[in-house]
Amino acid sequence: MRINIIKIFGFLCLIFVFQNSAFAETKMSDEGQYIFNTLGFYLGGVLVAFMAAGFCMLESGLVTTKSVSTIAAKNIGKFAICSLIFLLFGYNMAYGIPEGGYIGKFLMWSDSSDLGTGYSDHSDWFFQTMFVCATASIVSGAVAERIKIWPFFIFAAIMAGFIYPISMGWQWGGGWLATAGFSDFAGSTLVHACGGAAALAGVIVLGSREGRFSSKGEKKSMIPFAASSIPLVTLGTFLLWFGWFGFNGFSQLAMGTLEDVNAISKIAVNTHIAGAAGTVAGAAITRLIGGKTDIIMMLNGALAGLVAITAEPLTPSPIMAIFIGSAGALIMYFGTKFLESRKLDDVVGAIPVHMFAGIFGTLIVPLSNPNTNFGTQFIGVISVCLFSFIFSFLVFKALKQTVGLRISKEAEKLGTDKAEVGVVAYSIRD
Amino acid sequence: MRINIIKIFGFLCLIFVFQNSAFAETKMSDEGQYIFNTLGFYLGGVLVAFMAAGFCMLESGLVTTKSVSTIAAKNIGKFAICSLIFLLFGYNMAYGIPEGGYIGKFLMWSDSSDLGTGYSDHSDWFFQTMFVCATASIVSGAVAERIKIWPFFIFAAIMAGFIYPISMGWQWGGGWLATAGFSDFAGSTLVHACGGAAALAGVIVLGSREGRFSSKGEKKSMIPFAASSIPLVTLGTFLLWFGWFGFNGFSQLAMGTLEDVNAISKIAVNTHIAGAAGTVAGAAITRLIGGKTDIIMMLNGALAGLVAITAEPLTPSPIMAIFIGSAGALIMYFGTKFLESRKLDDVVGAIPVHMFAGIFGTLIVPLSNPNTNFGTQFIGVISVCLFSFIFSFLVFKALKQTVGLRISKEAEKLGTDKAEVGVVAYSIRD
Amino acid sequence: MRINIIKIFGFLCLIFVFQNSAFAETKMSDEGQYIFNTLGFYLGGVLVAFMAAGFCMLESGLVTTKSVSTIAAKNIGKFAICSLIFLLFGYNMAYGIPEGGYIGKFLMWSDSSDLGTGYSDHSDWFFQTMFVCATASIVSGAVAERIKIWPFFIFAAIMAGFIYPISMGWQWGGGWLATAGFSDFAGSTLVHACGGAAALAGVIVLGSREGRFSSKGEKKSMIPFAASSIPLVTLGTFLLWFGWFGFNGFSQLAMGTLEDVNAISKIAVNTHIAGAAGTVAGAAITRLIGGKTDIIMMLNGALAGLVAITAEPLTPSPIMAIFIGSAGALIMYFGTKFLESRKLDDVVGAIPVHMFAGIFGTLIVPLSNPNTNFGTQFIGVISVCLFSFIFSFLVFKALKQTVGLRISKEAEKLGTDKAEVGVVAYSIRD
Repeated sequence: MRINIIKIFGFLCLIFVFQNSAFAETKMSDEGQYIFNTLGFYLGGVLVAFMAAGFCMLESGLVTTKSVSTIAAKNIGKFAICSLIFLLFGYNMAYGIPEGGYIGKFLMWSDSSDLGTGYSDHSDWFFQTMFVCATASIVSGAVAERIKIWPFFIFAAIMAGFIYPISMGWQWGGGWLATAGFSDFAGSTLVHACGGAAALAGVIVLGSREGRFSSKGEKKSMIPFAASSIPLVTLGTFLLWFGWFGFNGFSQLAMGTLEDVNAISKIAVNTHIAGAAGTVAGAAITRLIGGKTDIIMMLNGALAGLVAITAEPLTPSPIMAIFIGSAGALIMYFGTKFLESRKLDDVVGAIPVHMFAGIFGTLIVPLSNPNTNFGTQFIGVISVCLFSFIFSFLVFKALKQTVGLRISKEAEKLGTDKAEVGVVAYSIRD
Repeated sequence: MRINIIKIFGFLCLIFVFQNSAFAETKMSDEGQYIFNTLGFYLGGVLVAFMAAGFCMLESGLVTTKSVSTIAAKNIGKFAICSLIFLLFGYNMAYGIPEGGYIGKFLMWSDSSDLGTGYSDHSDWFFQTMFVCATASIVSGAVAERIKIWPFFIFAAIMAGFIYPISMGWQWGGGWLATAGFSDFAGSTLVHACGGAAALAGVIVLGSREGRFSSKGEKKSMIPFAASSIPLVTLGTFLLWFGWFGFNGFSQLAMGTLEDVNAISKIAVNTHIAGAAGTVAGAAITRLIGGKTDIIMMLNGALAGLVAITAEPLTPSPIMAIFIGSAGALIMYFGTKFLESRKLDDVVGAIPVHMFAGIFGTLIVPLSNPNTNFGTQFIGVISVCLFSFIFSFLVFKALKQTVGLRISKEAEKLGTDKAEVGVVAYSIRD
Repeated sequence: MRINIIKIFGFLCLIFVFQNSAFAETKMSDEGQYIFNTLGFYLGGVLVAFMAAGFCMLESGLVTTKSVSTIAAKNIGKFAICSLIFLLFGYNMAYGIPEGGYIGKFLMWSDSSDLGTGYSDHSDWFFQTMFVCATASIVSGAVAERIKIWPFFIFAAIMAGFIYPISMGWQWGGGWLATAGFSDFAGSTLVHACGGAAALAGVIVLGSREGRFSSKGEKKSMIPFAASSIPLVTLGTFLLWFGWFGFNGFSQLAMGTLEDVNAISKIAVNTHIAGAAGTVAGAAITRLIGGKTDIIMMLNGALAGLVAITAEPLTPSPIMAIFIGSAGALIMYFGTKFLESRKLDDVVGAIPVHMFAGIFGTLIVPLSNPNTNFGTQFIGVISVCLFSFIFSFLVFKALKQTVGLRISKEAEKLGTDKAEVGVVAYSIRD
C-alpha cells in the first residue's frame, strides 16, 4: 500500500514535471504578459501622441499665414486641456461613474494594478488620453481662422470631459451599444465621426470665413485662402499615418500572447495598406477630374483611407483593405465638394475625412466581420453622430451667446495671429 | 525491485525538476521569443516608416520653392504605390516565386504564422515594405524638378515590383549572392546603392534642370537653385537618422534572445557613431576647403556615414565605426564634386550619399567581418548596381519614348508645383 | 527506512514541482528581464534622440531668419560631437575612472554583457548618450545668433567630455551626492539645470545680440528679433514632449518586472500631466497679464512643466503633477522677465525653462518623496549649478581669449547663415 502511494506520487511528479516543462518552454509567463500588455499601451500612447503633432502640422500648413500661430496655440493647448480634463473627469465617466464615484476613483486607481488586472492602469489611461486629444484635434482644424481661442478651449474641455467619454462609454465602457453588438475596433465612429460631427456643428454655428464664398465664383475667391505650407501638411499627414499604427495596432489592448501580437501585426498591415490605397485614390481622382495631381487630396485621401479602416482593421484581407481605403478617399473627395457646394467652410477638410469616411468604415464592418450586422452598425453610427452633433451644437451656441465664439471682422482681417496670439507665425526674408 | 523503480522515478523527478527550474528561471519561453521577434519587426517597421517622412522633408527642403508640393506628392505617392505593389507582387518575388506562385501566395500567407515560424509574417512584410519605400525614395530626390509625376509613379511601381525584389532576392531571399557568400547586413548595396544606381540612370536619361549648368561659371548659375528650407532638410536628416536605428537594428531580424538584443544594441551604437562621424567629417571638410561650415554637407555627411555602416553595423568596434562613417562622408563629398564636374544634376545628392557611400560600406565589410572576402563583396556590388542601373535606364528610356518623362520647358519655367500639382507650396507673408 | 527516504524524495519533488510550476507561470525569466531591460534602454534612447530633433526645430523656429541654417548646423554638429566625445571619454568618466582606466575601458566594454549584468551595456551607453546631447542642446539656443560655430563645437565637446560627466557622476555614477542622499530621478538638475547654468555662463560672456536691448524701449527694439517660424517651434516642443516619455520613463532603468513597468507607466502619466499643466499655465498667465495668449509662452510653459517633473516623476500623484508643472511654467515666465530686465539675451528662453524650472523641480522632490530632504536637495542643486556655471564660464572665457567666441559686427549684421555657414535658410517665393 505504502509503495503504491509512493508510486502514485512518482507518477504525479512526472506528469507535473513534463506538463510544467512543456509549459515553461512554450508559454509566456503571467508577468511577461503583464509587461507586454503594459508596454503595448505605452508604445501605443507614444505613437498616438505623435498624432497630436501630426494634426498640428497638418492644420498649421493648411490655414492661411495669418492664422498659423493661433492654430499651433490651439493644438498644443487642446492637447494639454483635454489631458487634464480626461484625468479629472472623462476617464471615470467613460468607464462608468457608478463604480467608485466620479472624480475620486481616478485619484486612487493608481494602486490597483497587479498581475490579476493584466496591465498597468496608468498605461491604459495614457493610451486612452491620446485618443481624446485626437478627437478634439479634428474639431480644431475645421473651425480655424475665425473661432476665438479660449471659447475653443472651453469646447475642447467639454469634449474631453463629457461628449467623448459618454458616447465612448456606450461602446468601450461596456454600455448599451456594446451590448447591442455594435463593433468599432479603434474608433472610426467613436473617435473620428464623433469629432467630425462636432466639427460640423462648429462650422455651422460659426459660419464661413469672410470672403470664402463670394458671389464672384469659387475659384477666384479661394486665392486668398491658400495653404501656408504644403511641406508641413505633408509632414503632419506622415505623422498621423505612423501614429495610426499605434492607434489601430494597440487597440488590440493586449500584446502578451502570440494571438495578440499576430493581430497587432495584421492590423498594422491593413492600416498601412488602407492609407496607401487612399493616397492613390486621391491622386487618381484629382488627376482624372481636374488634370492635376492635387497633393492636398492625396494627403486627405491617405487620412480618409486610414479613418475608414479604423472600424475594423483586423478581419479584412489586405485586398479588402485596398478597397476600404480607396473608397474612403473617394467619399472624402466627393464629401469635400458637397460641403463646398453647401458653403460650409471646413478649413482643413476634417468633416469629409473624419466623419464621412468614418461613417463609411463603420457601416461596412460586416463585409469582413461576420459577428456584426449592418443594422446595429447603422444604429451605432447614427447615435454617436447625432449625440456629438447636437451636444456640440448646443455648446457652441451657448458659447456664442455668452463669452462669444467668433472674432470680430477687424480681427479676422488682421488675422487671428495678430489679434489673438500676438505672435506672427513666419518672419522669413530671403 | 519495485522500490528501485520508485527510486529511479524519484531521481528522475528531481533531475527534471532542477533542470526545469533552472530553465524556467533563465530562458525565455518560445511564445516570449515569438512576441519579441514580432514586436521587433513592428518597431523596426515604424522606425523605418519615419524614414519616408525624413526623405520627404529632406527633399522638400532641398528643391527650389517651385517644386516643393510636387516632391511632397511624389514622396507620399511613392510611399503608397510601393507598398501596394510590394503587397501584390514584390514580396513574393523577393522570397522566391517558385514556392507557391506569384500573386496567390501572399493572399494566403496570413494564416501560416505560429510558434514554429518564430514571428508573424505580417510583421515581416510590414518591415520589408518600409525598405522598398526607402529604396524608391532615393530616386525621387535625384530626378526632382523636371520629371513628370505619373511616369515617376510608374517607375516607382516597377522598382517595388521588380528591380528591388529581384536583386534583393539574390541575397536576402537566399539567392545566388547569398550562396556565394556576399554579405550586406541591412542593405548598403541592396537598398542604398541599388536606389542610387537607379537614380543615376534617371539623372542621365532626364538631363539636368534648365540653367543648372550654364557656361557662365558654376557659382553664378547655382543661385536660382537655392534650397527652399534648410530646417526641413535638417528635420528630414534627423528623422532618417532615427529611422536608421530600426533599419539597421531590426535587420538582426530577431529580438527574442539575449544574443539578439545584444546585437541590436551594438548595432544601434555603431549606427549612431557612424552617423556622428559622417556629420563631423562633412563639417570639417567644407570648413577646411571652402572656409564655411556647410550645413548641407554636414547633413549629407551624416547620411553617407549611416549608409556606409549599413552593410555591417554589428562586427566593427565603435572606433572602426568612426572610420567607416567619416570615410563614407568624404566619399560623398568628393562624389558630389565629381557629379557636378560631369554636369550630372542630382538635386539632393542622392547618388553620392546612397550609391557611392553604399558601395564603399559594402566593400569594406571584410575589414571587420572575417567571414567575408573582398572578391565576393565586389561581385555583389557590381551585380546589384549594374542590374539596377541597366534595368532602370531601360525603364526610363521606355517611359520617355511612350508617355514622356520630362515636363515641358514652359512647365519647368513655371515650376512643377503650378504645372503638375496645381498647389503652390508656400503662401507666406510677413 | 528506504521507503521513508523515497517518501521524502517524493514530497520534495512535489514541493519543487508546485513551486516551480507557480514560478514559471507568474514570473518573468531572467533572459526575458534582460531583453525587456535592454529594449527599454533602446526605446528610451530612440525617444530621447527625438529630443535632439525637437531642440533643433525649437531653436530654428525661435531665432531670426538670418541664423536658422547656423542653428541647424550647431544642433546636428553638437549631436554628433557630443556622441563621439561621450564614447571616447565621457561615459567612463561619469561611471568612475578608477575602475579600468579612462579611454581603454570603453573600447573593451562591449563584451561584458550577460545575464548577470541584467542589460546590454551598449544599450545603456546609447540611452545615456542621448542625455548628454540634450544637455548640450540647452546651451545651443541661448547663445544663438552671435557665437562662432567652431568655438561652440569645442564647448560642446568639453560639456560632453568633462562638465556633464563629472557632475552626473557625482549622482548617477554613485559619487558623493548619491551618498549624501540627493535625489534627481531623470535629471532636472543633472541635465537641465546643468545645461541651463552653462547657457547662463555663455550668455554673460558673449553679451547680447546687437540692438537687442536698445535704449529706445524694449518693445520697439524687439521687432527685428521675431521668431522665424512658429510652426517649427511648436513641432520642436511636441518632439521634446514625446521624447520626455523616454527621458523620464526609461530613467527607471529597468522594464523587466511588473514593478518596473508599473513605474514607467506612472512616470509617463505624471510627465504628460506636468507638461499639460505647464502649457495651460503659460497660456493663462500671458492671457491675464498681456491680453493675448502667447504661443511661445505656452510652448516654453510646456517645457518648463516637463523639466520640473523630471526630478521626481514617480512619487507624485497626478494632482501634484499638475501643481509641479504649472508652478514650473510660472517660474519660467517670471524668470524670462527677470533675464530681460537684467539685459541677458537668452534667445530661446533656455535658462528660465531648463535652469529655473529644473532647480524648482529638484527642490520640491521632498514634497512627494519621503526619502529625501530639502537640505540635501539644496546642496545638490547648488553644487551642480555652481560647478557647471563656473567651469563653463572659464571655458567660454578661455575660448574668447584664444580662438575667439563672438562673430564680428559685420558678420552679425549679415547674419550667421551667410557669414559662417554660407547657406541661406529659406528661399521661399510665392
